[in-house]
Amino acid sequence: MIRFECDYNEGAHERILQRLMETNMEQTSGYGTDDHCERARMLIRQACGQEEADVHFLVGGTQTNTTVIASILRPHQGVIAAVSGHIAVHETGAIEATGHKVLTVPSPDGKITAAQVKAVYDAHAQESSPEHSVQPGMVYISQPTEYGTMYSKAELEALYAVSKACGLPFFVDGARLGYALASKDCDMTMADLARLCDVFYIGGTKIGALMGEAVVILNDALKRDFRYIIKQKGGLLAKGRLLGIQFETLFEDGLYLEISRHAVDMALKIYDILKQHGVQFLYDSPTNQQFPILPDSLLAQLSQDYTFTFWEKVDHSRSAVRFCTSWATRPENVEALTRDIVSLLQKDKDPAEFAEAVAVLETAAMV
Amino acid sequence: MIRFECDYNEGAHERILQRLMETNMEQTSGYGTDDHCERARMLIRQACGQEEADVHFLVGGTQTNTTVIASILRPHQGVIAAVSGHIAVHETGAIEATGHKVLTVPSPDGKITAAQVKAVYDAHAQESSPEHSVQPGMVYISQPTEYGTMYSKAELEALYAVSKACGLPFFVDGARLGYALASKDCDMTMADLARLCDVFYIGGTKIGALMGEAVVILNDALKRDFRYIIKQKGGLLAKGRLLGIQFETLFEDGLYLEISRHAVDMALKIYDILKQHGVQFLYDSPTNQQFPILPDSLLAQLSQDYTFTFWEKVDHSRSAVRFCTSWATRPENVEALTRDIVSLLQKDKDPAEFAEAVAVLETAAMV
Amino acid sequence: MIRFECDYNEGAHERILQRLMETNMEQTSGYGTDDHCERARMLIRQACGQEEADVHFLVGGTQTNTTVIASILRPHQGVIAAVSGHIAVHETGAIEATGHKVLTVPSPDGKITAAQVKAVYDAHAQESSPEHSVQPGMVYISQPTEYGTMYSKAELEALYAVSKACGLPFFVDGARLGYALASKDCDMTMADLARLCDVFYIGGTKIGALMGEAVVILNDALKRDFRYIIKQKGGLLAKGRLLGIQFETLFEDGLYLEISRHAVDMALKIYDILKQHGVQFLYDSPTNQQFPILPDSLLAQLSQDYTFTFWEKVDHSRSAVRFCTSWATRPENVEALTRDIVSLLQKDKDPAEFAEAVAVLETAAMV
Amino acid sequence: MIRFECDYNEGAHERILQRLMETNMEQTSGYGTDDHCERARMLIRQACGQEEADVHFLVGGTQTNTTVIASILRPHQGVIAAVSGHIAVHETGAIEATGHKVLTVPSPDGKITAAQVKAVYDAHAQESSPEHSVQPGMVYISQPTEYGTMYSKAELEALYAVSKACGLPFFVDGARLGYALASKDCDMTMADLARLCDVFYIGGTKIGALMGEAVVILNDALKRDFRYIIKQKGGLLAKGRLLGIQFETLFEDGLYLEISRHAVDMALKIYDILKQHGVQFLYDSPTNQQFPILPDSLLAQLSQDYTFTFWEKVDHSRSAVRFCTSWATRPENVEALTRDIVSLLQKDKDPAEFAEAVAVLETAAMV
Repeated sequence: MIRFECDYNEGAHERILQRLMETNMEQTSGYGTDDHCERARMLIRQACGQEEADVHFLVGGTQTNTTVIASILRPHQGVIAAVSGHIAVHETGAIEATGHKVLTVPSPDGKITAAQVKAVYDAHAQESSPEHSVQPGMVYISQPTEYGTMYSKAELEALYAVSKACGLPFFVDGARLGYALASKDCDMTMADLARLCDVFYIGGTKIGALMGEAVVILNDALKRDFRYIIKQKGGLLAKGRLLGIQFETLFEDGLYLEISRHAVDMALKIYDILKQHGVQFLYDSPTNQQFPILPDSLLAQLSQDYTFTFWEKVDHSRSAVRFCTSWATRPENVEALTRDIVSLLQKDKDPAEFAEAVAVLETAAMV
Repeated sequence: MIRFECDYNEGAHERILQRLMETNMEQTSGYGTDDHCERARMLIRQACGQEEADVHFLVGGTQTNTTVIASILRPHQGVIAAVSGHIAVHETGAIEATGHKVLTVPSPDGKITAAQVKAVYDAHAQESSPEHSVQPGMVYISQPTEYGTMYSKAELEALYAVSKACGLPFFVDGARLGYALASKDCDMTMADLARLCDVFYIGGTKIGALMGEAVVILNDALKRDFRYIIKQKGGLLAKGRLLGIQFETLFEDGLYLEISRHAVDMALKIYDILKQHGVQFLYDSPTNQQFPILPDSLLAQLSQDYTFTFWEKVDHSRSAVRFCTSWATRPENVEALTRDIVSLLQKDKDPAEFAEAVAVLETAAMV
Repeated sequence: MIRFECDYNEGAHERILQRLMETNMEQTSGYGTDDHCERARMLIRQACGQEEADVHFLVGGTQTNTTVIASILRPHQGVIAAVSGHIAVHETGAIEATGHKVLTVPSPDGKITAAQVKAVYDAHAQESSPEHSVQPGMVYISQPTEYGTMYSKAELEALYAVSKACGLPFFVDGARLGYALASKDCDMTMADLARLCDVFYIGGTKIGALMGEAVVILNDALKRDFRYIIKQKGGLLAKGRLLGIQFETLFEDGLYLEISRHAVDMALKIYDILKQHGVQFLYDSPTNQQFPILPDSLLAQLSQDYTFTFWEKVDHSRSAVRFCTSWATRPENVEALTRDIVSLLQKDKDPAEFAEAVAVLETAAMV
Repeated sequence: MIRFECDYNEGAHERILQRLMETNMEQTSGYGTDDHCERARMLIRQACGQEEADVHFLVGGTQTNTTVIASILRPHQGVIAAVSGHIAVHETGAIEATGHKVLTVPSPDGKITAAQVKAVYDAHAQESSPEHSVQPGMVYISQPTEYGTMYSKAELEALYAVSKACGLPFFVDGARLGYALASKDCDMTMADLARLCDVFYIGGTKIGALMGEAVVILNDALKRDFRYIIKQKGGLLAKGRLLGIQFETLFEDGLYLEISRHAVDMALKIYDILKQHGVQFLYDSPTNQQFPILPDSLLAQLSQDYTFTFWEKVDHSRSAVRFCTSWATRPENVEALTRDIVSLLQKDKDPAEFAEAVAVLETAAMV
């Protein structure tokens, strides 16, 4: 079985494992107060061009989103997000569990617009009795989005400007940040992002690390007591050094972007080849997630050898699925995948030939 | 600087790192659904003699305590714990953050008794209007305790019996469980513990792993939907395999107990040597934490070369401090530490000789 | 100014005030343990035909919804509701503040269907990793709805059946229950409702009482420890007798339905008269709330003498507004209102005549 | 049965009921935006000598404490209170349910001291890793306390000064405030109190009103968005006018203090008479709660005719109990109570005479 269902199917980049081996018996203090964390913080500040940024290391994405959001909102406030946002659908109500509503706005492509933020803010402010509904308290986006799409620099500028005008801290979930920054369509750097939000994080779990997310707090007002919230929400790793060592390795000579670029290259190879063979895509993603629309009969066949994620039914005979690549994706696997899809597509053109495949479809469970 | 301030100063046992290297490029599914986790679960069930137990892997202790407790209590219920319990003092209100009060009982030695549990339960049940105060909903202990002390099998039997009689699930925090089970004073096995509680966990972070705690749920009523709570509280590691691989290694041939025994041996060496030289101890600990009472002047000197944890002032000139050993503690470091303490103690007998030390004391900051 | 913007513009029905006077210096025990509460419970059980029901008195609607929902859900569960449901939009995130997501479904008329409940349940159950999203844990509707519409007995039967089949407690918010039961289109009694849900409440605040809601718990599994949750959520009134006396009065000889009927009669008078004059309505409401669509210019004029609630813009020149009647609405006020609207409508037909009105519109602020 | 077990056994002062009658059919807007609330706010500001204070009306004490505290604390913060404080023991974990720990300090007399606040603050600030424990975020006291004792003006000044120095908002629960201010031992006015805290409330439920507490916010930083929190926590009464009318009545010509004085007079009569007959008291209370220590046999007899609250066993044959008086206490009831106690005390001196009483004791359940 070759796996494309997510971007965390393997362990860590070998250089990271190497560093963990080398440093294993060093004695360090706990909870992120060690020298490796300190050096990783410094490297990240440099990459952001923000000497005054606070940098904290947490373990996973849900934890990081929850911790950042809970640290910012007052009890009566909610967070504006796309209806497809990770915090809105994939975190088992982690945000609500800290007492806050996710205020969703529609989004066909996974992105939200400055105009939407303004509209939510204005609608609330103009109510005759605003205290009867949740007050918008911050804005959440992810870069890239759940659908692999990206915000342009201009879009981020507009979102940051409107957030500021409304007094709403602007938070960017970067669980897959490298896969946006490494995209050839991307018109911004990490330093640009750091100028255009109040707080963001750099995902390690999905990009080369065993685990780990680096939160970068730019806005001074959000820095205070953040370690308390990390601890309370269960994110203060005893051996914080593990996170420090990993981010040190990822940031000391450009490894983070280098391996991100590999993932994006692999994804675009899938895109290009399928496109050439007439496959349509649900979203137009320039990053490491691709969402082709394929015949259900083909998918049933394909799932014998490959894992991928069912996304949604498109019509009675076709579905969109998701293929993820990552820093660890092997070119030979991408070749095999695309070759097999193309081959199945060609057979598919002769429906008679596919009596058997349809039968398979009815019994097989897709991954 | 030689570190004794906690039991997570180093990375992981070399066999664990080795296994992480070997398995690094295996492709597995996420969130603990992989074969390594499955095998680790099986090994733990065997070690517990409980084929029907549910086993889940989480990342850290605060997260594990919060997740287990939040999964059990109804909104109006609290958890009974020693006033010195980890959940009562060292978790930044993580339990309260999920809505629950920690109902503390006094404890000179870190332990609570069956009689105390009964008393709390009865006092509440006998109130004329019990609904005006928090209902006891479960019992929490740790084995060993925060003070390094241990429950005997008989004490656990009594606690479990009274908890059952009161309808209170009984939860054992085993963040340092190995260090209890490996103590020569210990009269129980992991299988005994598994028979004597509703849910417990096996700490990996402090015993050989990079990180990780294995929750073992014995009581069927507590098994339902536990993965939802893990996810919501931020503990469902994307690369769950990391936890599976580590517990697989710790449990496949007795490594967990073997390295725990080393830590306890090292701790008792400290205890024995200091005892021989007339040092008193704050608690009578047979596990990996030792709490000698030493002159402040001596501690000031000692802190030039060693880290340890200040515990409490005992009188105007002496304090109790904590030394932790671990699976990673080197015998030569224990020798150096005890030699230096003994040497300082001997100098200390001549107060004149220590004018200098007292001066140092006034300026030095203890770790 | 004559008020139609809500159904709590006046104090209490005079018989209630009378009883409060008569009983004022009686000495009773607190927190709803007095004889008046006991008798009110008995009367409500009789009205429900449910001798085993638990009946509790709370102060207001948001409090009651929060208390009931928090008492039922486990931490990872959410409540299914119409997107327009009171708990979804008008309670400042009170449900989320207890840790739970409101799982909204679309609803053009304020109602939800059994098929929608089934669909939400199935969609969740069929996810490959259901633990990554909030588990549906109960179903919430209000009878009548926020839009004045009502569920038929058949609709409630279907909702209750599907809820039961899915293991979801079914909760009916009856803040305006009387106004449904007293509607001439209503095909059910309070006893019918009590057979068709797990828990519901009978609103007093909007129907004759100073304040107060009576929660009726039918399902034994939901009865346990409910008073603890009331207390914790701030709803256990010290002088609980106040609620007991009010519900006693409302239920001892049919007063509740009698005054509800008056409100509905008044509302239908507004409906009938406006309908005769060609006015369209946003929703087809047979209860005490009416939602006519009227010219903005007319509304601006009308708001000089009457209060009502702006609901939504319908097109560039017309808006839907809400008029509420209540137990306290005076026939002469309804006559004045309808007469004035009709008169304004007639003038409106001659646009020339309305130059002045348009000017007014631009400066006047609608209530 | 004559009731002394609490100070909310009757309805409301007759003048309040009178005003509710007179205003009953006035039409007003909801949620505290009516003219009665506005006038009550103005009268309370005058009584406080604080023209800029924000005044809000809530329904009950637990609700008010929860709302105020939740509006102030950040997620990682707790509230300092006496171990006997209402929020620590009598509110079913309402504070914890909003996510916050109550940081208790010992208190033999129900009061806490400025030195204790300083000590808690310093202990936390001086921890080497303060983020591992709950940060003190505010200070809570009640005036008078749960034990009927009072803070002097000097004590309040000290508490306010130390709170300010530590950056901790200082909150005074005045559920029984009138009974302190009306005490002849009291050396402060409501205006003094308003100068010496950040936020306090004036209890109506226990002093003349049907229900209601008036929150007075002095510190500008705490004023923002408070109505949102009231709404979310279920305290925004639809017919807010009810609270407005009651506080208007209590404050328009000194009724609040006048009826408070009556309660205190009644309480001191109990105190004086029992004292004359050699009865000891558990606390030295100058307010409306008295805590005599009486023989259990006597209490068993007394409970045939009177209700009172069991407080604690003092020795094998005596208990402390609580008698509350209120604005509604009748002098003839106080006379009867004291006469009966004195008479029972005299019989008690002849133990032989009491064989029967002891037998009664063993079966009777005290209220």
